[in-house]
Amino acid sequence: MFCTFFAAIVCCAVDMPWTNTQGAYFPYTTFAFLVGAATSMLCGYIGMVIATICNYKTTYLCNTDKFAGFKCAFQGGQVLGFCLVGIALLVLEIIILCYKAAMNPTEFEQAAHLFEFVSGYGLGGSTVALFGRVGGGIYTKAADVGADLAGKVDASLPEDSPKNPGTIADNVGDNVGDIAGMGADLFGSLAESTCAALIVSSGSRNMVNTPEAIYFPLVVTAIGIVASFICQWFAYIKTDKVELQLKIQLWVSTILMSAMIIPAIYMLPEDLGITFAGKEYHTTRWEAYTCIILGLWSGLFIGLITEYYTSKENRPTQELAEACKHGAAPNIINGLALGYLSTVVPIFCLAITVLVSFYFAAMYGVALAAIGMLGCLPIALSIDGYGPISDNAGGIAEMSNVHKETRENTDDLDAAGNTTAAIGKGFAIGSACLVALALFGAFVTRVATTFQLEGNAKWANAYNVNILEPFTFAGLLLGAMLPYWFSAMTMKAVGDAAQDMLEEIGRQFKVMDECTKRGEPAVPDHELCISISTNASLKKMVAPGLLVIISPLLAGMLFGFQATNGILAGCIVSGIQIAFSASNSGGAWDNAKKYVEAGLLTIDGEVIKKGTAVHAAAVTGDTVGDPLKDTSGPSINILIKLSAICSLVFGTFIAQYGGLIAGGAAQL
Amino acid sequence: MFCTFFAAIVCCAVDMPWTNTQGAYFPYTTFAFLVGAATSMLCGYIGMVIATICNYKTTYLCNTDKFAGFKCAFQGGQVLGFCLVGIALLVLEIIILCYKAAMNPTEFEQAAHLFEFVSGYGLGGSTVALFGRVGGGIYTKAADVGADLAGKVDASLPEDSPKNPGTIADNVGDNVGDIAGMGADLFGSLAESTCAALIVSSGSRNMVNTPEAIYFPLVVTAIGIVASFICQWFAYIKTDKVELQLKIQLWVSTILMSAMIIPAIYMLPEDLGITFAGKEYHTTRWEAYTCIILGLWSGLFIGLITEYYTSKENRPTQELAEACKHGAAPNIINGLALGYLSTVVPIFCLAITVLVSFYFAAMYGVALAAIGMLGCLPIALSIDGYGPISDNAGGIAEMSNVHKETRENTDDLDAAGNTTAAIGKGFAIGSACLVALALFGAFVTRVATTFQLEGNAKWANAYNVNILEPFTFAGLLLGAMLPYWFSAMTMKAVGDAAQDMLEEIGRQFKVMDECTKRGEPAVPDHELCISISTNASLKKMVAPGLLVIISPLLAGMLFGFQATNGILAGCIVSGIQIAFSASNSGGAWDNAKKYVEAGLLTIDGEVIKKGTAVHAAAVTGDTVGDPLKDTSGPSINILIKLSAICSLVFGTFIAQYGGLIAGGAAQL
Repeated sequence: MFCTFFAAIVCCAVDMPWTNTQGAYFPYTTFAFLVGAATSMLCGYIGMVIATICNYKTTYLCNTDKFAGFKCAFQGGQVLGFCLVGIALLVLEIIILCYKAAMNPTEFEQAAHLFEFVSGYGLGGSTVALFGRVGGGIYTKAADVGADLAGKVDASLPEDSPKNPGTIADNVGDNVGDIAGMGADLFGSLAESTCAALIVSSGSRNMVNTPEAIYFPLVVTAIGIVASFICQWFAYIKTDKVELQLKIQLWVSTILMSAMIIPAIYMLPEDLGITFAGKEYHTTRWEAYTCIILGLWSGLFIGLITEYYTSKENRPTQELAEACKHGAAPNIINGLALGYLSTVVPIFCLAITVLVSFYFAAMYGVALAAIGMLGCLPIALSIDGYGPISDNAGGIAEMSNVHKETRENTDDLDAAGNTTAAIGKGFAIGSACLVALALFGAFVTRVATTFQLEGNAKWANAYNVNILEPFTFAGLLLGAMLPYWFSAMTMKAVGDAAQDMLEEIGRQFKVMDECTKRGEPAVPDHELCISISTNASLKKMVAPGLLVIISPLLAGMLFGFQATNGILAGCIVSGIQIAFSASNSGGAWDNAKKYVEAGLLTIDGEVIKKGTAVHAAAVTGDTVGDPLKDTSGPSINILIKLSAICSLVFGTFIAQYGGLIAGGAAQL
Repeated sequence: MFCTFFAAIVCCAVDMPWTNTQGAYFPYTTFAFLVGAATSMLCGYIGMVIATICNYKTTYLCNTDKFAGFKCAFQGGQVLGFCLVGIALLVLEIIILCYKAAMNPTEFEQAAHLFEFVSGYGLGGSTVALFGRVGGGIYTKAADVGADLAGKVDASLPEDSPKNPGTIADNVGDNVGDIAGMGADLFGSLAESTCAALIVSSGSRNMVNTPEAIYFPLVVTAIGIVASFICQWFAYIKTDKVELQLKIQLWVSTILMSAMIIPAIYMLPEDLGITFAGKEYHTTRWEAYTCIILGLWSGLFIGLITEYYTSKENRPTQELAEACKHGAAPNIINGLALGYLSTVVPIFCLAITVLVSFYFAAMYGVALAAIGMLGCLPIALSIDGYGPISDNAGGIAEMSNVHKETRENTDDLDAAGNTTAAIGKGFAIGSACLVALALFGAFVTRVATTFQLEGNAKWANAYNVNILEPFTFAGLLLGAMLPYWFSAMTMKAVGDAAQDMLEEIGRQFKVMDECTKRGEPAVPDHELCISISTNASLKKMVAPGLLVIISPLLAGMLFGFQATNGILAGCIVSGIQIAFSASNSGGAWDNAKKYVEAGLLTIDGEVIKKGTAVHAAAVTGDTVGDPLKDTSGPSINILIKLSAICSLVFGTFIAQYGGLIAGGAAQL
């Protein structure tokens, strides 16, 4: 429903003759949007179906052999990874070929339009990601927090107890949030970064005149599929250390990828001749290669830093656990400080990547860096998908009354998934930053092109985003505020939905108690809890969703494109900080709790047990971290990417009709 | 020691012949720096001396009459308010007159240099503020958190019990943080915004040629003193509602001020002729008036919004108290969301103020808005000073064993001070944003002027801070990260120092227990606790202090002034969001706890008492909020202002020698 509605808006604002300066009579952008949305949904659907099948298979296999269980869960993740990247790439290629045939852009000038139409594909992917990530995030955490507070804290049931009416909703939530949400998020990143690269490179004569050069970004992704395919065999070397095996996957695929791209760069012209902001960058092949490599390796590096701050093997998280000895407050204070501190190194990585790749090839360089970071996406997604599958396998083991060893096996698999999931999150945030910046560049290009086509002699000024202009600076200030507003909404949504869930579970417990007293069988109503989560997530994602989509457009319509520029820039630079810090604080609290539960924390030589005040302090931290790390933090990715691609798609519209109050074109 | 050291650096980098393009042979900037630092210290000292006298007087008067106590505490605050603003203005005026006489700037071109030298005064004030705000913040919260955790939680002593060795340190901390810290912070804001206005206006021929026009910013502050002086009489109308009386002060002074500025605007020329970035703004008197009024009223408005979110009379804080019923975690989650949400309206206020005042008179408008926001500073500071005085009066009442009624009277006074303190905080953050932006504008002006004097034909490009340039965007990204890094450092500092305090108090408790057993008198060693706080605050503020001062300079030296521009802009837009959200989350948790303690929260009609799990959840929130609202949040003010004024003072140096790696002037 939302996609149809939004498609109508896109059609009116972008594909109608009054904005469609290219005189095309087919709603190219709208069509691409719908295809993108459908493809993303299909990928998410496949991922979830496979995951639900692999869940119980993994539990079954863990009965006898942990390694067989690992293999099954990892293969389930691979279906998600390879399907998603493969289908995304295939459909994008088909769209480009179809549009090319239909538009017949023999001339250089038309290449840019073609790719502007194609950018609807990215918008479609990102719109679905709004549902997957934001809606999914609310779903999963409402169920998780509600079930935990009611079941574990109030009724003292173990995790995943079948007696807890919220258990199934919690397990479904893992699939929704971590498989559909993460998948849609990264699908969006991939589609958007490719679209941004295509749009920017279509402004270069050298690139357009070398027939295959323009498809270089797609080839990089294709190489990533092959590299990931080769390296997945390493996963089947039998070993006991599951976490190590997953990490080896990341290292090997990154190294393989770095080598395998080298032959591909020869499809680029010797001088890429990228033009941005009226300036020509004489980018060489090797400089383009450097951009990709910087993205690829800084992605890995960001992931490893994230792991350093959130893994219970390292000092920062252990210090959190120590702080629990003095109560929940020191745990929370230190956890917040840890999250803040954990932004430092990733931001340095990103700043260096942006600096160098921008310096070499302007926005094309940034887009290449984003594509590079997403290079090993099939492996990254396999690992991400592996997490909820093994988590759910544990849930099934608990509910189906298998013997204790099976549960221990699935717990081992789950623990490894948790650590690597942190890596995936850092990587998703980093790529979102680069993607959003590249889209921002593409938006500016589109605005400038529109003015150029209109014959506005000062069109080149559109590339000049001077923060010492009132509208731009005010936009920057407001843009930097958006992630806070957005986070407040998503956190409140989780809080409210968890509250409803808590009350429903409490009510059911009472009913079940009465049944037991009367000697009747007490059956929890799982369906009702699922529908609470579903309804809450759908209803409560409307406001944050609208905020993301409307803010940059409204600013542009009222105050002109420079206000939109300010908002996009402010939103990116402020958003990723919150995203990193929220994800890492949450991850560290989660693992600090696990550290305590594993019996690794001692006071005067005595091991701290579950149920003590120290453990309660650790649980408080974990509960605070849940919405931060799984809802508001990752949702920021969507905020910064979706606002940027929305602006890009509506770029021509904003340039032509924007600035009702302040005069859009007058600001040139 | 630090000031002498820093003065030497300033002297070498700014006042020596190799950078002093004006050929002056007196270290004007260094001298102004030292005078500014000394003046700020003097004001802080006076404020603290008066506060310590008024403390016990207030307690004594509260024995018989609450209103007399209120009068005494408020008068103590007034000494701080009127002294600080009066002395700041007087000394600044003397410096300007002396420098004018010494330099004899008969020509238009020299007026700018004069005020660039004077800007050292602002740097001096801000440097002391680093000690007052950051050091003071660490001091007060280390003592507070340590004393609370050891005394209230572990040993079940009441607040301010003389048996608690940390009590005196806690009380001293209130003075240090809230009087010296807040005073130095706002002294810095006042000095800096005036310097920024002077520098920017000295670029306008119309302003320089109208002899009195240039002093308009100083006159506005002087009018503020008069308006505050008139309105303070309203404080002595006898009433019982202390909080209302304080709020009336703010309203009346704002209204009075709005009217009283009108005659003063006729000292401005009809067309101010402000020039910024090579563009002339034909600002009228009334437009200048609008800038001031926007600042003045948005300051009040930000304060009231802050109060809305943090006062226990309103829904948001009451909802936090409700959340405590489900434990500490929902309290923390909702409190964080509340803080995030509370940034929305203040940022809109600031964005509108910046937009309009920038539109009317470029950076001069922004500086005027900042001066306007600080217009009623004497009253604002009186109220701020009133808070810790009445807080300490309560402490003295508790320790001196007076009858219960006295303590109730002082608690009433204290409660009113807490609410109005929230207003003061919002107001300090808002003004810091405007001041930092104005300083940023002055920095850009100084860089451009340096290139102009060097004969670089492209000097006007220095005004163009294009975020779509690699160095600027990378700077923006890093700048937006700085407040996180800085907050992490200050929070960690509080945590570590509180830990030391906790251990020391615990040790003393053991010693005292043994003394009691042996029948000896058990005397707590307050001195030792004070020295722990003092040493911790001095030691642990070095790292964040260096971060603030070095980051923009290092970026400028390595990558040129555009990198510094990016860092300053990123730091401002990201910093104020954290500052608002941290202060407001903390304030709301504090008052949610007070709401519970006041017996206003009920479950099924039953009042929740101290010592229950619900109350414990509220206390956890309060403890988490303490470092947020009193250390890391307000310290961000210093971060954004000090980094900007540092860049301004070293502006010529950065322009001439900066860009070792990337070429500073080459970026024009």
